[in-house]
Amino acid sequence: MIRTTTIAIVTLPGFNELDSFVPLHILNRAAGVTAFLAGPDRQAVSMNGVAAAISANLADAGKADAVIVGSGRNTRAFADDASFLSELDFDPTSQLVASQCSGALILAKLGLLGRHPVSTDDVTRPWIEGLGHQVVAEPLTVSGSIATAGGCLSGQYLATWLLLRLTDEAETRRALAYVVPVGEGDTYASRLIERAQAADPAVVPVPQETY
Amino acid sequence: MIRTTTIAIVTLPGFNELDSFVPLHILNRAAGVTAFLAGPDRQAVSMNGVAAAISANLADAGKADAVIVGSGRNTRAFADDASFLSELDFDPTSQLVASQCSGALILAKLGLLGRHPVSTDDVTRPWIEGLGHQVVAEPLTVSGSIATAGGCLSGQYLATWLLLRLTDEAETRRALAYVVPVGEGDTYASRLIERAQAADPAVVPVPQETY
Repeated sequence: MIRTTTIAIVTLPGFNELDSFVPLHILNRAAGVTAFLAGPDRQAVSMNGVAAAISANLADAGKADAVIVGSGRNTRAFADDASFLSELDFDPTSQLVASQCSGALILAKLGLLGRHPVSTDDVTRPWIEGLGHQVVAEPLTVSGSIATAGGCLSGQYLATWLLLRLTDEAETRRALAYVVPVGEGDTYASRLIERAQAADPAVVPVPQETY
Repeated sequence: MIRTTTIAIVTLPGFNELDSFVPLHILNRAAGVTAFLAGPDRQAVSMNGVAAAISANLADAGKADAVIVGSGRNTRAFADDASFLSELDFDPTSQLVASQCSGALILAKLGLLGRHPVSTDDVTRPWIEGLGHQVVAEPLTVSGSIATAGGCLSGQYLATWLLLRLTDEAETRRALAYVVPVGEGDTYASRLIERAQAADPAVVPVPQETY
């Protein structure tokens, strides 16, 4: 039996399309990896009015090998909703737990951010700071199995980091080759990997003999 | 009355999420710009199984200020479907017409690519060449009001080019500021603008006195 690595992307009403679909697409390019949208409802309408089907529920997200909490227009309300929060059962001892932009608010409310620095977007920043966390001007911040990303397009870095942690560098590069801009292939992929590595030096032990 | 600039993103069954949603989100960040999904059906299921509502039909795409033909698993079949092609009424004399990856096949079949070089992905490349077009290893190629992009993440460059043509550099930078990775803001936005400018030098006349 082939084991599939699963990644749930929590996608709430009013969601940011980049924050859910950039990781979804990149992650699904890797062999043996399945990324899917998860949420409280069977459908969510994005911040720009696109209705998307949500294939998994919040309990499924808790069972995935990794979970990304996406962002959107209503994240702050969800972060204040005790009933919603009680449905989230993320476990950083058995899964990678990540957030994109305002998704960090959900992780904060779940008590998952500890005293580690946090990446988020500029709009969410004061809300995270208001909860006593330090926000850094970095696109991706990793502490153990918790990652936070800020700025929609840093979803590229977050997806790359997840692939490096869940597969290996060769498979990560193979997946990225499908999505990088034509004519910029290796350079672009290397930059994505460098960003992931800068946030989590443990993630890619670079063999010295190749340099 | 405020005139809204409209951009239709043709999104077919089996569509590539990056190719449709990266431009959709970035373009909608600009003031006075509305980007939406258009297609033959009211819903399309993406290549990774996400069902998305399609809000406009193909006739609407012909009336938009700009149209992007996205890519996906079934584009080649659609490019061979005379009935489908007959529903597309794109006019480069009155709108910007762009393709992402295999979307170039549709533009080729519509006779819109002329003798200009074409950007596309490596899988689509032989099919475009088989139609007598020259494919270049560039992420974005522009000829007048026709643009072709290759590699999913070059959708960033395509969206930037569209904003530069449809708004101005100040509004483009304002829109990009919302989506660039935190901590890389101006550098990242400048690189997107440089790529658009490299493909279409007419698009941003850089005032010499600023250098």
